[in-house]
Amino acid sequence: MKLSNTFVKTFREVGKEETARNAELLIRAGYINKEMAGVYTYLPLGLKVLKNIENVVREELNKIGCEEVQMTALQNPEPWQKTNRWDDKVMDVWFKTDLAAGGQLGLAPTHEEPITNMLKKYISSYKDLPVYVYQFQTKFRNELRAKSGILRTREFLMKDLYSFCADEESHNEFYEKATQAYYRIFDRLGLGDCTYKCFASGGAFSKYSHEFQTFLPVGEDTVYFNKDRSVVLNEEVLNDEVLADLGVKREELESTTAAEVGNIFSLKYKFSEPLDLVFNDKNGERKTVFMGCYGIGISRVMGVVVEKYADDKGLVWPEEIAPYKYYIIGIGKKGEQIAKELHDKNPANIILDDRDARPGQKFADAELMGIPYRVVISDKTLAEDSAEITNRKTGEVKTVKLVDLKVEE
Amino acid sequence: MKLSNTFVKTFREVGKEETARNAELLIRAGYINKEMAGVYTYLPLGLKVLKNIENVVREELNKIGCEEVQMTALQNPEPWQKTNRWDDKVMDVWFKTDLAAGGQLGLAPTHEEPITNMLKKYISSYKDLPVYVYQFQTKFRNELRAKSGILRTREFLMKDLYSFCADEESHNEFYEKATQAYYRIFDRLGLGDCTYKCFASGGAFSKYSHEFQTFLPVGEDTVYFNKDRSVVLNEEVLNDEVLADLGVKREELESTTAAEVGNIFSLKYKFSEPLDLVFNDKNGERKTVFMGCYGIGISRVMGVVVEKYADDKGLVWPEEIAPYKYYIIGIGKKGEQIAKELHDKNPANIILDDRDARPGQKFADAELMGIPYRVVISDKTLAEDSAEITNRKTGEVKTVKLVDLKVEE
Repeated sequence: MKLSNTFVKTFREVGKEETARNAELLIRAGYINKEMAGVYTYLPLGLKVLKNIENVVREELNKIGCEEVQMTALQNPEPWQKTNRWDDKVMDVWFKTDLAAGGQLGLAPTHEEPITNMLKKYISSYKDLPVYVYQFQTKFRNELRAKSGILRTREFLMKDLYSFCADEESHNEFYEKATQAYYRIFDRLGLGDCTYKCFASGGAFSKYSHEFQTFLPVGEDTVYFNKDRSVVLNEEVLNDEVLADLGVKREELESTTAAEVGNIFSLKYKFSEPLDLVFNDKNGERKTVFMGCYGIGISRVMGVVVEKYADDKGLVWPEEIAPYKYYIIGIGKKGEQIAKELHDKNPANIILDDRDARPGQKFADAELMGIPYRVVISDKTLAEDSAEITNRKTGEVKTVKLVDLKVEE
Repeated sequence: MKLSNTFVKTFREVGKEETARNAELLIRAGYINKEMAGVYTYLPLGLKVLKNIENVVREELNKIGCEEVQMTALQNPEPWQKTNRWDDKVMDVWFKTDLAAGGQLGLAPTHEEPITNMLKKYISSYKDLPVYVYQFQTKFRNELRAKSGILRTREFLMKDLYSFCADEESHNEFYEKATQAYYRIFDRLGLGDCTYKCFASGGAFSKYSHEFQTFLPVGEDTVYFNKDRSVVLNEEVLNDEVLADLGVKREELESTTAAEVGNIFSLKYKFSEPLDLVFNDKNGERKTVFMGCYGIGISRVMGVVVEKYADDKGLVWPEEIAPYKYYIIGIGKKGEQIAKELHDKNPANIILDDRDARPGQKFADAELMGIPYRVVISDKTLAEDSAEITNRKTGEVKTVKLVDLKVEE
């Protein structure tokens, strides 16, 4: 990608109405644009990061046998009425709208009801089970407040996976597989060392659910943990019964703020029962399907990565999700020429800063955009047939012979 | 992909409420699920076709220098009020919804207003032009009737591209480039030989716009064309003035039905003027940006391909957008074993029908699903160390030595 070809610009500052650091930096670096409170457009660089996160999640879910679909935003009230979640008092984040042909529709804040309803057509025998279905889908939530940048928005990209099993035992097996997949995902996304499985409220259906919480100063949640972090629990379940369950004492716990990046739920029969998702078992007996659900907020994860890694110079992307790996700056006629040649070898992996701008601005933008490796080629480096490579995260500077520069990788 | 691993099933028939052939076949073959009138979920096979179409479009647009973004469904009324399109009487397909925090929002049926509004932050000088921005985005249209399957729905995937130029001349240059890109796209999607650029109404802003119309019995539009199809025009502009413009007489034209698969518009200053998208030209003079827009209905194209190619046995996919290239059936112990080995070489390109089902059903489903090549390996073919390959489109049957089977490609 050549910066001279993109419409995107960086900004020194953004308006005061943006109070969240993640959104402020992403706007300044040209990754997103704020449409209104809690609603953001993804610009070319931001969309690339989002797709990279999506691909990591997709790969890990496919490995454990999940199938990808794409459900709809528009929702028929019927299945939601059967589970009693159509009511705005029960589910307070609905956006609703009127159909010109008559009737009311909702914009899906989540998809348990439609997926359960749909699978009635595909599940009738124990031979049809298990089923693991996921999607990347834009969700709509009518949040009263939206002031955490892309951590909590009214329209956001979410990965939601649903599992359908014949019994609790096979469900538990998959639940554990999904847990392991989540660990691998957060590792690959650069959040492995600060993200923990955390006991949380099971809502109406289970004693517990599990959240994946990333310890983070700006996190909206408060979690309690013991020193080795083998026990982490959400403030909402900090009570004597739970402490006894987990075999830990109140005074052994410390607290910290954290951002929820994923959650996994044993839904049991909460949705399959009212929606009548049943099957015939080996003995011909009619049984209700045992369900689970597993979410990851894709755009939220992007915001959490920003919050975790950014420094006073701007964004810092882990390599696996960076929009580009190299940011190349050529200084002087020959430097510019070689920079261009390097770019043309692998434009999908390289930002070429070929703008008519001072080197100082290019250096600053390379840092603001958070590209993992800045490569500078100037008369000075060329005197040694070399380029200077700076690691954005560590600040480490290396001089590398041009013949050894492998920007194709 | 192993059929034994997917939740998707084929159906002999669908409910009577589905009257469109494209949706009926796609539901029967396990590609989509109907949520309600005009709202469809894409199942694994359907989602793959959609993504394949998307990729063809993306490749061709990137080649002509366009940049991909992702705007939002939720719309702030403000820019739409400035162009007078917020009013339901002016734009009659709005879905609107109330924000819990107060105020009304819309669900974008198109994106001229927000993209024009956003680019005010990025365009200030002639040096910033031209800009070509596109997205693949779910659009919402509150259609009164929805009975053409996935050809006309209330929620659909669309590619919309917007161009921003300094003057009409540079706009016209790009308009022609986009036209050529559209021809290449429809060629690659298998619609090249029956899709024509067609004169249509320019709406409020231009004398003409251009549609890309695929001649199709179930098309909703009526178009008029001369024998060599060098002149094609939409019924809506069939009048003396237009005939004179195009230098063609009424009696030289035949009519046919057609489905609009794309359209390109010279928007001129229709949106940039009320939204004040201006720039300073070389002489420091303030000028208004000259705009164009270019749409392709991705899910609609999928429906048109179905309508064009399907036969009495089911779907028929052109190779470039087929979800998988091969459908492999092994018969007998050794046949099954070899089929599985072939599948494992390239599961991304192969459906292995390893279901516990009669060969007859497997043959029928291979045809219903429309996979380009059916590969059968049985004791009979193995007697000659061969497989039997049937071309879904032509029906041609070939016997190919196993050593010559290149399913990795």
